[in-house]
Amino acid sequence: MGILVVGSVAFDSVKTPFGEAPEILGGSATYFSMAASFFTEVSLVGVVGDDFGNEHVRLLSTKGIDLRGLERVPGKTFRWAGEYSYDLNNRTTLDTQLNVFADFKPRIIPEYQTLEYVFLGNIDPTLQRDVLRQIRKPVLVGCDTMNFWIERQYDSLIETLKFVDILVINDGETRELARESNLIKAARKIQALGPRTVVIKRGEYGVLMFNDGLWFSAPAFPLEDVFDPTGAGDSFAGGFMGYLAAARGLDAAYLKKAIIFGSVMASFNVEEFGVNRLTRLTYPEVIERYRQFKALTHFEDLGNDLCRS
Amino acid sequence: MGILVVGSVAFDSVKTPFGEAPEILGGSATYFSMAASFFTEVSLVGVVGDDFGNEHVRLLSTKGIDLRGLERVPGKTFRWAGEYSYDLNNRTTLDTQLNVFADFKPRIIPEYQTLEYVFLGNIDPTLQRDVLRQIRKPVLVGCDTMNFWIERQYDSLIETLKFVDILVINDGETRELARESNLIKAARKIQALGPRTVVIKRGEYGVLMFNDGLWFSAPAFPLEDVFDPTGAGDSFAGGFMGYLAAARGLDAAYLKKAIIFGSVMASFNVEEFGVNRLTRLTYPEVIERYRQFKALTHFEDLGNDLCRS
Repeated sequence: MGILVVGSVAFDSVKTPFGEAPEILGGSATYFSMAASFFTEVSLVGVVGDDFGNEHVRLLSTKGIDLRGLERVPGKTFRWAGEYSYDLNNRTTLDTQLNVFADFKPRIIPEYQTLEYVFLGNIDPTLQRDVLRQIRKPVLVGCDTMNFWIERQYDSLIETLKFVDILVINDGETRELARESNLIKAARKIQALGPRTVVIKRGEYGVLMFNDGLWFSAPAFPLEDVFDPTGAGDSFAGGFMGYLAAARGLDAAYLKKAIIFGSVMASFNVEEFGVNRLTRLTYPEVIERYRQFKALTHFEDLGNDLCRS
Repeated sequence: MGILVVGSVAFDSVKTPFGEAPEILGGSATYFSMAASFFTEVSLVGVVGDDFGNEHVRLLSTKGIDLRGLERVPGKTFRWAGEYSYDLNNRTTLDTQLNVFADFKPRIIPEYQTLEYVFLGNIDPTLQRDVLRQIRKPVLVGCDTMNFWIERQYDSLIETLKFVDILVINDGETRELARESNLIKAARKIQALGPRTVVIKRGEYGVLMFNDGLWFSAPAFPLEDVFDPTGAGDSFAGGFMGYLAAARGLDAAYLKKAIIFGSVMASFNVEEFGVNRLTRLTYPEVIERYRQFKALTHFEDLGNDLCRS
């Protein structure tokens, strides 16, 4: 039961047009776990330094996230600093200090090796395969990656993709990985590499999913105030995979619902700095926004009210 | 019955990464009319020169478009030339020759003055009001505009908007008109100027509609090959307004269906150069793509299959 996620846990220093937040809890596995915890049990594999305070451990534990797989080693936790443009659509990395994350070798403790739902966060594709080798019988493998790995570890990434069921990446990465600018053609090329399902995140423009022959489009939830886009993609992946792990079904109806739950989690996440909004988010709020997504996108089938022929 | 559209009829010279088409039939009123003609009777008010060939008159007439309001005056028809970037997202105007369009003063012939559905294409806002003054009892007034008028005729445009029910513009124009970067806030500001409904076109990212308190989002139809984006926005407006004129209902369900029909028409329009695709488009194809839009966006309500609380 539940889902295993492997990825980064970090301290982020974030600057947006609306303010600054120094050294707040972040990292892809953190956002993923917080979002997924609304749907299923989450086991987190990552690494932090000895500067990782107990308040962060407590916060994640409060959400029911299993941290037995979170290694704590001497040194400093991964740090990232970035700044967003006026319209939040562009992000400049100001500083990256990998610290203890530089030598991260994910070790899957015995209690996690029987987990069936796995999400490989954005790490070296060789390490992603190492993780999979330690899992006895994966039922569903989700995967993220980024331009860094596409450009520097292309062959290794292609090898990893053979074992991936669902690739969750953004539109720019989709085009770069497939070497194809049209997203439909790009998705088809990626599907031929292994993943049956390709989920393309387009930021404020929502998500496109290609699953076998099925195409599904979901908008981003329109928000009056976006405070901090950091972690939106990881929160999306957490809601998406977390729901699938809970539903234990992979047909189209479940996949579509999972896309909406992912979009719901991302929409909440950007409303405040860091994980603040997810921290105090309640399940009834999640359900309510799912219904708002339905109202936002629903239109009727064609009836007999038509029309000129 | 039917809808009146006022706007440009032109010859376009279009260059895309896939080829060139010199001096083909174009103009906002042309695309609008072709698209709307699938749903209702269309009466076109515009002006052409004595170089406007009978083959174009025949084409529009074949679609049932009433051309009694299309003035023909000595001189040359409006000409526009433009080129699209590799990804079709950017367009450079290479040449604009207003020709007979420069002195266009729309005159609504008596047969059109009782029409109730009106679409004011992208022309001088002062002329847009002149049109409205010639209509006896407009039931629904749609309106387009562009950055040119926002920048140079702002006060006149604001005056026109008082008489507009539905404003159909793109996202950049929305931000510029409202002087507000967030689209929700911008739509609300525009609604306070007059239009109850604001329809925001976002190109390949679809459409957002704000109608009173209702928000509706529709994606663009994913296409493997987009040949020529020219006229996509006008085809959208034609399908949208044409359906509303046919349905003669303005509640939310109709407005949403209208958005989808607009999106359907735009998606066909970009598949070939100019009006070529709309020329040979059939009504069953329109219906089929509406259903594909439904499949693309539909997801189920929440049932009892959930979840952790």
